[in-house]
Amino acid sequence: MTREDGRAADQLRPVTITRNWLDHAQGSCLIEFGKTKVLCAASASEGVPRWRKGSGLGWVTAEYAMLPQATHDRSARESVKGRIGGRTHEISRLVGRSLRMAIDYKALGENTITIDCDVLQADGGTRTAAITGAYVALFDAVEHLRAKGALAGEPLVESVAAISVGIIDGVPLLDLPYVEDVRAETDMNVVMTGSGKFVEVQGTAEGAPFDKAELDALLELAAKGCVDLTRLQNEALGR
Amino acid sequence: MTREDGRAADQLRPVTITRNWLDHAQGSCLIEFGKTKVLCAASASEGVPRWRKGSGLGWVTAEYAMLPQATHDRSARESVKGRIGGRTHEISRLVGRSLRMAIDYKALGENTITIDCDVLQADGGTRTAAITGAYVALFDAVEHLRAKGALAGEPLVESVAAISVGIIDGVPLLDLPYVEDVRAETDMNVVMTGSGKFVEVQGTAEGAPFDKAELDALLELAAKGCVDLTRLQNEALGR
Amino acid sequence: MTREDGRAADQLRPVTITRNWLDHAQGSCLIEFGKTKVLCAASASEGVPRWRKGSGLGWVTAEYAMLPQATHDRSARESVKGRIGGRTHEISRLVGRSLRMAIDYKALGENTITIDCDVLQADGGTRTAAITGAYVALFDAVEHLRAKGALAGEPLVESVAAISVGIIDGVPLLDLPYVEDVRAETDMNVVMTGSGKFVEVQGTAEGAPFDKAELDALLELAAKGCVDLTRLQNEALGR
Amino acid sequence: MTREDGRAADQLRPVTITRNWLDHAQGSCLIEFGKTKVLCAASASEGVPRWRKGSGLGWVTAEYAMLPQATHDRSARESVKGRIGGRTHEISRLVGRSLRMAIDYKALGENTITIDCDVLQADGGTRTAAITGAYVALFDAVEHLRAKGALAGEPLVESVAAISVGIIDGVPLLDLPYVEDVRAETDMNVVMTGSGKFVEVQGTAEGAPFDKAELDALLELAAKGCVDLTRLQNEALGR
Amino acid sequence: MTREDGRAADQLRPVTITRNWLDHAQGSCLIEFGKTKVLCAASASEGVPRWRKGSGLGWVTAEYAMLPQATHDRSARESVKGRIGGRTHEISRLVGRSLRMAIDYKALGENTITIDCDVLQADGGTRTAAITGAYVALFDAVEHLRAKGALAGEPLVESVAAISVGIIDGVPLLDLPYVEDVRAETDMNVVMTGSGKFVEVQGTAEGAPFDKAELDALLELAAKGCVDLTRLQNEALGR
Amino acid sequence: MTREDGRAADQLRPVTITRNWLDHAQGSCLIEFGKTKVLCAASASEGVPRWRKGSGLGWVTAEYAMLPQATHDRSARESVKGRIGGRTHEISRLVGRSLRMAIDYKALGENTITIDCDVLQADGGTRTAAITGAYVALFDAVEHLRAKGALAGEPLVESVAAISVGIIDGVPLLDLPYVEDVRAETDMNVVMTGSGKFVEVQGTAEGAPFDKAELDALLELAAKGCVDLTRLQNEALGR
Repeated sequence: MTREDGRAADQLRPVTITRNWLDHAQGSCLIEFGKTKVLCAASASEGVPRWRKGSGLGWVTAEYAMLPQATHDRSARESVKGRIGGRTHEISRLVGRSLRMAIDYKALGENTITIDCDVLQADGGTRTAAITGAYVALFDAVEHLRAKGALAGEPLVESVAAISVGIIDGVPLLDLPYVEDVRAETDMNVVMTGSGKFVEVQGTAEGAPFDKAELDALLELAAKGCVDLTRLQNEALGR
Repeated sequence: MTREDGRAADQLRPVTITRNWLDHAQGSCLIEFGKTKVLCAASASEGVPRWRKGSGLGWVTAEYAMLPQATHDRSARESVKGRIGGRTHEISRLVGRSLRMAIDYKALGENTITIDCDVLQADGGTRTAAITGAYVALFDAVEHLRAKGALAGEPLVESVAAISVGIIDGVPLLDLPYVEDVRAETDMNVVMTGSGKFVEVQGTAEGAPFDKAELDALLELAAKGCVDLTRLQNEALGR
Repeated sequence: MTREDGRAADQLRPVTITRNWLDHAQGSCLIEFGKTKVLCAASASEGVPRWRKGSGLGWVTAEYAMLPQATHDRSARESVKGRIGGRTHEISRLVGRSLRMAIDYKALGENTITIDCDVLQADGGTRTAAITGAYVALFDAVEHLRAKGALAGEPLVESVAAISVGIIDGVPLLDLPYVEDVRAETDMNVVMTGSGKFVEVQGTAEGAPFDKAELDALLELAAKGCVDLTRLQNEALGR
Repeated sequence: MTREDGRAADQLRPVTITRNWLDHAQGSCLIEFGKTKVLCAASASEGVPRWRKGSGLGWVTAEYAMLPQATHDRSARESVKGRIGGRTHEISRLVGRSLRMAIDYKALGENTITIDCDVLQADGGTRTAAITGAYVALFDAVEHLRAKGALAGEPLVESVAAISVGIIDGVPLLDLPYVEDVRAETDMNVVMTGSGKFVEVQGTAEGAPFDKAELDALLELAAKGCVDLTRLQNEALGR
Repeated sequence: MTREDGRAADQLRPVTITRNWLDHAQGSCLIEFGKTKVLCAASASEGVPRWRKGSGLGWVTAEYAMLPQATHDRSARESVKGRIGGRTHEISRLVGRSLRMAIDYKALGENTITIDCDVLQADGGTRTAAITGAYVALFDAVEHLRAKGALAGEPLVESVAAISVGIIDGVPLLDLPYVEDVRAETDMNVVMTGSGKFVEVQGTAEGAPFDKAELDALLELAAKGCVDLTRLQNEALGR
Repeated sequence: MTREDGRAADQLRPVTITRNWLDHAQGSCLIEFGKTKVLCAASASEGVPRWRKGSGLGWVTAEYAMLPQATHDRSARESVKGRIGGRTHEISRLVGRSLRMAIDYKALGENTITIDCDVLQADGGTRTAAITGAYVALFDAVEHLRAKGALAGEPLVESVAAISVGIIDGVPLLDLPYVEDVRAETDMNVVMTGSGKFVEVQGTAEGAPFDKAELDALLELAAKGCVDLTRLQNEALGR
């Protein structure tokens, strides 16, 4: 089987991470997985939500959204519809949970970091690009707090990256663009730490249920992709 | 390690499925996993949503919700808040996707089955109880269509059941009640077919990232639980 | 005239009240008027709404809602529609007002009791079943506060029960199921105290305006029904 | 007992009905019960809601609302809050139901009359003023349809008027302004036809439950008030 | 060119300002520009919004809305639709900004004046009638605060009035009713102080872009109209 | 007076227009006015809104929005708040009206062009950058329709550009960044055609009312700015 864009089964699309794409945000990057473009911006502010006050612990949260013309056919704005869709909710929660795995709340102190991941263009893998870019923005927001002397220690205990994998015509493939995504029998999003452990595994049978061997093959592929993304994150951060 | 309710690590809580708990719905059951009680009701109606008309294909969808006093502390109604929360959206989508794996749309014909899973009492595992009970309601809604001569074949290609698993103090455990759920380092919900294949695998690191060995142990435990649940479904359905 | 279910004109449907149907709520019952099933749950919490703080007075409020498959044809969820319908609002207000008649706020102290009445199955008379069951849940929530030593006296000054009455083909009938309800020329819901006084009288001409004699006949019938319901409440409460 | 404004117990406040207060609406009046001012406007349009199409029957509906500065203290706009309150819903439904009693749908033909009752100033009795004024607006909207030749017969089978009654210090009183309304032990709104029959009876115990004798006294008082209002409606309509 | 209502190009429609049309509001008037009727009501309350507390400065805000039957064809209520339309938002903001130009916040002290402009009937120029009437209501609300001794000085530094102008068939016209408004090639709303300066200039090409000469002609016409309106405001206020 | 960024009073900030910044949209550009970055995307689709069907006329509409981290301090998402703010509504309407002046609906045929202007970073002048960029996206969307043979003629009758002007310390200045914007006594947004005529003039007194001489000075400055922007648009479009 040949992929439409000529990639090997275990090869990422061209990934670029443009750090500090914004001027105001405490951390930001424009991350691109092929034609998928996500603007990740992190704000760092003193204080935590009411339910966490006085705990000495910080908080990290995330919101994911898509511009109306990110998709091939324009989709209606959620602000115009007056309600957030299930998919948006689901991915926002996934991004937030994933990023929180990277953080030691105690070292963060009572500060809140909010990460916005806005998809400017969508071509598959938007949630995994969002998580991968969000980590870069988070890193710089933490640095901002460090420079202000607002930290109680080193809050970044891990790096986090994410990639999609799927099975098409029985072949496990890494980093699916839209044309592959719609054809996948099984679709999986995997979030991993820089140290190679799992943060989230979300596998979904699209066309037919899958067995343990298929699951294992997909996880192996995802692990390889996350290693590559971790390296690209480090390069972007000058580490 | 001893579980608070004395169960073995790979043992389900007492499960009861009361079929046809409702009089009007085309299929229904009250399913209980220990103290967790979910009322599953399926309506079967002719016709499909606009975007599917003329396709000859049916449609299955699901909505999950929780009564305000299902939880230990009363939670505000989503209808009063005027918006559905992310968790509700996420689980509704999971239940719908899982049930759709059981169905051959062509054999269903242009009919729509809507399954409502309302949590009357929550004590952990509400989404897995919902999926397991929803299958029973779905089965009877299909029978209802069959009796009316509205089917184009046999739409039920699989049975579907779901269970939660998690790791506490390093020990993988099956079917976590609330007291265990809040302590779990890793939490996984697994949806499987009666034939032992995976429909959904959703693993989340709660306290710390997990490795492949832990993942494998959890999947094995889940597989055992789903076999038990499939048997209980069949008993409830008199098969 | 013979009623479809063979009852006498002044006879209730079979009524069952299953006390403590839930484990978490401070008071609860599943109440059934024939096929109508309403789950009533009461939470008791310290403190009162902001506008009542420092008054020394407690507060009682209620919410009524219907599950989507409670009715013959599935109705859309109000949480999904993003707004509460007029009927739901109207009945919630009625239930709250009625229950508040049973309470001495001063003796309740600055505690709040919230009663949720969720209709699991609807076959006429859901609001009257809700009020009748809500009193049972309220009673137990008060007992819960008493056991905690949180009361300033005896807050329960009355019991409250409710029944529907209507005129069909000129004949006044007690406790109308759905098939009778849709045929009624006049429809009335009456809430009464255990001591036989009126809390609410809501009479509505459905097909034609009614005169004083008809009104009197309906009120007499309702009074008889409320006496029966009061007895059943007392039995359920072991009094 | 002397009333603050010197009225007899069975006396209405000064009532004025200014017919055709608006230029565009097919029927309208500004109705005043003392300081209570309600602008009633009726639109008459061809066609009926979707669920009624092809039935040959017309439709009448009503909406009630209050301007933010109608009350002593400004209240927030429901449009700004983004939701309609329970009281507004409840009264809109009451006005609509009451007006529909006046109408023969068949004679109305497939036309829709929508009546808006906007409270410009509130001093008690706004819902009863609304119903009484709405009838006048309805009458002219029907005339408008008649002039266009759009009617299938005489749709106005009855006139409808409404008044509030209440018990203060044990004395039944007619047409309560705000200062009396807040002191009432029992509060009742009664809608009657011009022929003296009941359309709606809504009695609510505010301070203490009431008995049959009190109910009867209130109904008698209301009947007298409705006779007076019917005469004033006829005068306004030049009958 | 002759205007349908026979007015000169630079002539206002008959304007009436009925001061204190309401009894509860601290300031109010019913203002009419021909058939356009706007009810303006001002509430004056102690305290300011949270973000302004402790500043020693007051606040003035406004809300504009239209009754459903104000227009020729009934329009749906924004409260029923659950959202405020762009036009309503835009005009509310314009009215608020315009009125704030009349006020010295320091002299107002920490008091808030809220002005509601509700269009009872619309025939063109509703926003300019609203601003012109709102000033009268504002004036009386300030007097109310003065009488209570709540002011820190003289907050009314200017009077404010507004008028619409437009070009039809190349001719600049003052104060356009609906029939002219829909035909205008260019439409402008101008808010001016009693001293003849500009507060807001909002010119919009409707049919074709306009040049500087046209703009100047419209501004001159508007200035004349505002002088007339200022005189009428002063008469209404007995100055 | 010296401007913080050293510009002359009548000088634009550096403006860049990156055409076709997106791959899917039928027209797009990233437009930058200094640090202000707006992503403009135009979709072109067959068909028009329901109320325009069968007219033979096309339709152009626009939506403006701001990403949460576009501003110095993160602002809440309108989708999360569940409602669109007044400022967003107002600017969306302004952008749409302005673009529609560029279009001959008849030549456009029954096609709809929707232009989204999403502010990625805000530093003053976002609405004027949006209009200027939107024209570029509109141009390419029209070309797309032309290439498909979907046009009935040449719909682009004009080009449109916009700029802000303001008075600071008595000096009229062109193209205000945020630091100047907050200090301006008078603030004006001017939309002009490539042929030098006015489409919109929106002048607002911020600190004090303004006179005709100030208005004239601002309009002259704006005219110069729009000439420069028209040239830059033409360069970007390769004309």
